[in-house]
Amino acid sequence: MAPKGYLFSTVEAAVKKPGRKDIALIVSAVEAEMAGTFTTNAVKAAPVRVCMKKIASGTGQAIVVNSGNANACTGLQGMKDAREMISIVSKGSGIGQDLVYIASTGVIGMPLPMDRMRQPLRTLAGDIGGAALDEVAQTIMTTDTFPKVVHKRLKLGGVSGTISGICKGAGMIAPNMATMLCFILTDFAVGKKTLTAVLKSSVGRSFNRITIDGDMSTNDTVLMMANGLAGNAQFKTDSLDLAKFRKAVEEITYELAELVVKDGEGATKLVEVLVKGARTERDAEKAAFAVANSSLVKTAVYGNDANWGRIICAVGYSGIPFKEEKADIFFNNIKVVKNGLANNRDKEATAALKAKKIRITVDLHAGRASAKVLTCDLTEEYIRINAEYRT
Amino acid sequence: MAPKGYLFSTVEAAVKKPGRKDIALIVSAVEAEMAGTFTTNAVKAAPVRVCMKKIASGTGQAIVVNSGNANACTGLQGMKDAREMISIVSKGSGIGQDLVYIASTGVIGMPLPMDRMRQPLRTLAGDIGGAALDEVAQTIMTTDTFPKVVHKRLKLGGVSGTISGICKGAGMIAPNMATMLCFILTDFAVGKKTLTAVLKSSVGRSFNRITIDGDMSTNDTVLMMANGLAGNAQFKTDSLDLAKFRKAVEEITYELAELVVKDGEGATKLVEVLVKGARTERDAEKAAFAVANSSLVKTAVYGNDANWGRIICAVGYSGIPFKEEKADIFFNNIKVVKNGLANNRDKEATAALKAKKIRITVDLHAGRASAKVLTCDLTEEYIRINAEYRT
Repeated sequence: MAPKGYLFSTVEAAVKKPGRKDIALIVSAVEAEMAGTFTTNAVKAAPVRVCMKKIASGTGQAIVVNSGNANACTGLQGMKDAREMISIVSKGSGIGQDLVYIASTGVIGMPLPMDRMRQPLRTLAGDIGGAALDEVAQTIMTTDTFPKVVHKRLKLGGVSGTISGICKGAGMIAPNMATMLCFILTDFAVGKKTLTAVLKSSVGRSFNRITIDGDMSTNDTVLMMANGLAGNAQFKTDSLDLAKFRKAVEEITYELAELVVKDGEGATKLVEVLVKGARTERDAEKAAFAVANSSLVKTAVYGNDANWGRIICAVGYSGIPFKEEKADIFFNNIKVVKNGLANNRDKEATAALKAKKIRITVDLHAGRASAKVLTCDLTEEYIRINAEYRT
Repeated sequence: MAPKGYLFSTVEAAVKKPGRKDIALIVSAVEAEMAGTFTTNAVKAAPVRVCMKKIASGTGQAIVVNSGNANACTGLQGMKDAREMISIVSKGSGIGQDLVYIASTGVIGMPLPMDRMRQPLRTLAGDIGGAALDEVAQTIMTTDTFPKVVHKRLKLGGVSGTISGICKGAGMIAPNMATMLCFILTDFAVGKKTLTAVLKSSVGRSFNRITIDGDMSTNDTVLMMANGLAGNAQFKTDSLDLAKFRKAVEEITYELAELVVKDGEGATKLVEVLVKGARTERDAEKAAFAVANSSLVKTAVYGNDANWGRIICAVGYSGIPFKEEKADIFFNNIKVVKNGLANNRDKEATAALKAKKIRITVDLHAGRASAKVLTCDLTEEYIRINAEYRT
C-alpha cells in the first residue's frame, strides 16, 4: 500500500519501558524532496531544532523516530543525543547525515536513555525493509489507542501514484500543529516550493484546526517526502494535476486530524464545531476555537446535555464582534437557538447528542466566512490518563 | 458582623427547584455610593445590562439577587423580567427603582419563572432585616459547596468601620471577573470616584487573576456599596487612611477569590502560579495564565506528578518571549528546573504535591515584573459536576 521506493524498519529499545517497538526508521530508496512544519511553541525539542535547520535544504532520504521520550527541555545534551541518533542511522544505512531527519515524542525533560538506544539504532539501520508502514505507525504511538494511517492512490500526469500519511497524537492537541508527529510520503514527483506550499495549506486547515485540551506540544512535527519514483513530470503551477494532488493531501491531513481527535485522550465523541456567517475566516476560527476549547461545552457534550448557553457564552468571550440576537445554533440539524433565544428543541437535541459524531453549528449572520474546528468531549478518563501519565 | 445600616432578607421561590432559599435582598438604611465591575463577555445577561446603566449614577440602596437562573440569553423578555423584579422590590420596600440593583446566576437561556417569583419577591421586600449576611451568601450559591464571606474591621479617620464581602462562584471562573457574583458592603464614607478606583484595582489583582476552567460567564458582577454610617469624613486622595482602606478591600477580594478557587468544581487542591523575573507584568500574567489554564498541568497536580515539562511547555506557548535555558521552576521551595533543565528533585516535589495548597513558581530571569494567578487541580469530579449540571 505504501508509495514506491519507501522502506521501513522498527526496533525495541525500551526507551520508556520494555515490551514494545519504540524506534522506527523511514527510508526512501532515492533522495526525496522534503517539506516540514513544526511547533510554534517557544520551547522546541532538540529533534525539532535539528529538523528546522535541515529542512532549509528541501531534501532528505530518511526519518528516524522514537516514542517514549520527547528529548525536550534536555539542553545541550539533548542536541548531542539527537545528532548521535542521526549519526548512528547514517553510518548503518549509508545515507548522508544531512539527509536523515529526526523526531521524538513522549515525556518531556528527561535525557534520552542513549545507552539503551545505541545498539537498537544500529539494528534498525541494518534492517531497512524489515517492517511495514503500519508498524511504523504503531511504533510512534504514545497514549494513542490505535495507529493512524491513511492512503490515497490516484492517477496524475498519466501515471499512478500513492500518497500515504501516518500520524500519532491524542493529547496536547491544540490550535497549532495538533498532531505531535505526522509523516506523509508520496512517490509523485513534486517540486520543493510546491511541496512546501501544499503541505502548509493542508496543515493549516486540518492539524491546526483541531483541539483536544488546548495544550501545544514542544515536539509537533509534520514531514512530507516526495521521491518521484511514480515517474510523473513535476506538476506545473495552476495545473489541474496539482489541484488534484493538493486536494488529496488535504484529504489525508484532514482524515488523519479526524483520527487524532477520535483518539482524544478519554474521548467518547467526535465534535465538529462549524462557525459560519462570520465577517472573516479569522473571526470564524476564533469563535470556533473558543467553543471547541471550552471545558464546559465539552463536558456538556459528554453528558448528553444540549446546554447551548455554554456555546453562546464561549462565542461571547472569544473576542470577536458578536450580536447574540442574530445568532442561530444547531446540534446537527436541530436549531436549538434562533435569533439568540431558546427554540425549545432541547429534547430532540439531547437525543442527537447520544451519537458518536456531533456537529455544532453557530451561524453569526454577520458575513460569509466560515471555519471548522474538530474537538472531542471531555471525560473522567482524560483526567485519569493525564493524572497518571508518568507513573 | 456586617457593617452598620445594612439589612438583609431571603426567600424561597423554587427558581430552579424547591427546597432552598434562592432570592436575597441587600438593603442599606440610607442611600449609598455605589461602584461596579461587570463581565467583559460580549453576551451579557439582562441583569448585567440593567446594572451597567444604573451604575453611571454612582448611587444605590438595594441589591436583589436570585440563584437558579441566570436570566441570560433571554432577549427582551429577560430585560422585562429583570425590570419587573426591581419594580416589585421597589414597591415593597419603598426604595426608588433607580436605587435597586439586580444580579442573577444559574442556568443560561431559560426565561425566569416569574409566575413563581412574584409573591416571594413581595415577601422578600416586606421582610427586610429578617436574615443575616451569611444567609444571603448561602442563598446566592449554585454549584458552590460553601458560602463565601469575609469581614474586615478597621479604624480609619478616627472612627471604627467594617467592610464585608460575600461572593459565589465555583465554575466558569476565568481570566476576567472570575466570580460570578460578589457584593462588598462598607459603612465607611467613600467618594464615588475613589470607590470605583479602589474596586477596579482590587478586582484586577484578585478576581481577574483566578481561573478554574477558562470559561467566562455572562453574568459576572461585582457591586460595592459605601453608606457612610461609620461617620468618617470621606478619605482624601493620597491619604494614609485611603491606602489602608484600599489594602483592606484588596485583602477582601483576594481572600474571596481564594475561596472561589478552593471551591473550584471538583477541586482537591489550591494552586498558586507565580511567574516572576518577567520583562513586564503583562508578560508575567500571560505566562501565569497559560500555566494555570493548562489541563495537562492541572491533571498532573491532581495526580501528584511533578511533571514540570508541562509547565515549561505552557510558558512556551503563552506567546511571551521566553528563553528556556534561563528558566527556573519550583514546586513550593523545591527547585525542579534549573536553567531549563531537570534538577533531579522530582521525588521531593512529588511529596510536596500531596499538600492541599501548592505554589508553582516560574522565574524567567528576564526582568523584574511578576504576577500571581490562582487556580485548582482538574479532577474526575469536575467532569461529573458539569456533565450533569442541567439534569
